Amino acid sequence: MECTIEFRVRYAETDQMKFAHHAAYIVWFEMARIELLRKIDLSYAQMERDGLLLPVLEVNARFYKPAFFDELLQIRARFNEIVKARLRIDYQVYRDEQRICEGYSVHAFMNCGGRPVRPPQFFLEKFRK
Amino acid sequence: MECTIEFRVRYAETDQMKFAHHAAYIVWFEMARIELLRKIDLSYAQMERDGLLLPVLEVNARFYKPAFFDELLQIRARFNEIVKARLRIDYQVYRDEQRICEGYSVHAFMNCGGRPVRPPQFFLEKFRK
Amino acid sequence: MECTIEFRVRYAETDQMKFAHHAAYIVWFEMARIELLRKIDLSYAQMERDGLLLPVLEVNARFYKPAFFDELLQIRARFNEIVKARLRIDYQVYRDEQRICEGYSVHAFMNCGGRPVRPPQFFLEKFRK
Amino acid sequence: MECTIEFRVRYAETDQMKFAHHAAYIVWFEMARIELLRKIDLSYAQMERDGLLLPVLEVNARFYKPAFFDELLQIRARFNEIVKARLRIDYQVYRDEQRICEGYSVHAFMNCGGRPVRPPQFFLEKFRK
Repeated sequence: MECTIEFRVRYAETDQMKFAHHAAYIVWFEMARIELLRKIDLSYAQMERDGLLLPVLEVNARFYKPAFFDELLQIRARFNEIVKARLRIDYQVYRDEQRICEGYSVHAFMNCGGRPVRPPQFFLEKFRK
Repeated sequence: MECTIEFRVRYAETDQMKFAHHAAYIVWFEMARIELLRKIDLSYAQMERDGLLLPVLEVNARFYKPAFFDELLQIRARFNEIVKARLRIDYQVYRDEQRICEGYSVHAFMNCGGRPVRPPQFFLEKFRK
Repeated sequence: MECTIEFRVRYAETDQMKFAHHAAYIVWFEMARIELLRKIDLSYAQMERDGLLLPVLEVNARFYKPAFFDELLQIRARFNEIVKARLRIDYQVYRDEQRICEGYSVHAFMNCGGRPVRPPQFFLEKFRK
Repeated sequence: MECTIEFRVRYAETDQMKFAHHAAYIVWFEMARIELLRKIDLSYAQMERDGLLLPVLEVNARFYKPAFFDELLQIRARFNEIVKARLRIDYQVYRDEQRICEGYSVHAFMNCGGRPVRPPQFFLEKFRK
């Protein structure tokens, strides 16, 4: 269960080192995560409207090669596992065949009151398919 | 009725031209605006919790000189006027004595349901003092 | 001579008002500008490598309707004119048929030493076609 | 050898969950890192002008509690170690006495041509003091 998105590095995402700033990757992971959910027919926008949120508990990124302005990059996002009501998603950023970054994010399931909840059944069903 | 804040240009705010990216100034205007409100004893955080929002209707910035990483900049924010339930705030960005950017923002008064409202009395009283 | 790009509002671009933050539009304008240049066979990335930069002298945006997370938006960017070595580009942001924002940016032509230069011939030729 | 900075959560850093967006913390780590270097008399701006860069090889953040708009937060940054020409810095984000996030970043030493270099003597001397 994975999903690949393609996008261009924005000018605003570069820094004076001429690299895409490392915090931009964290935002790209998020974009890929949203598309990964969409791929299993889950709209994260709708999920939040329905009162289920997936706040980030941890994020990690290892940078192998810099990315530059206007480059077309690909991110492959993949559901890893749900353990103890925590969802882990893995990411790999590519420039064509070259892997330039890897990372992951860990998420809780939270209701709109800010309380942790168990992963709901509809989520688990989509996830396990 | 004005307020000056001082802050450093963040590395993440630079771009590959080595300038502070122009969109960062819009965020700096916002920081200065929040402090300007605080100066007349209005916490924008509390205003939003109380159901009064000031969404941006227009924003403008003219850039005279670039700003660079780690520079200490000053922003002077000044209430301009409230006309037809719209609040205008003016901004000037300085590097010491040198004015490097000018701009303004125009705001509506909105309730938490997204409806435009008249500027509330408590706001006008603070504003006119 | 115009160009339309389509993109989704990122989660990181929202703010606690649940709107896409107004500074995000300035970044979207930039994305549209890069694609507008590409449409007349100009790679802005290459232009900068060749020593021609287009720093922003002014930016303006008027917000008519909010944009929300995950919405598909369109930006239409259009070259306006080059007057006195300044290039103006106009932007309109749409959600389907609804125009939600309009704005413009004004740019100088600058060499890599930071000096203003006249618009180069290759640029004017592409621009006037 | 550590350093604590204090700053307010910007409105633009919030997201529609009303939390400070997790990518903002990565930018805050960077701010704290710059001040940590300043504390041992190293200006990162000057270091880059002199041709020594500290690109990020890895970044990690674990989020314990959300942060909200306008809150005053503190970040404590601490040099961890230099092993195999890699510098690790640790971060702890506090809201008063409450630790809300922890993380670290790992950096290479790079010259302006993009080549990895050994940590220079002047850096090691400051670092070891």
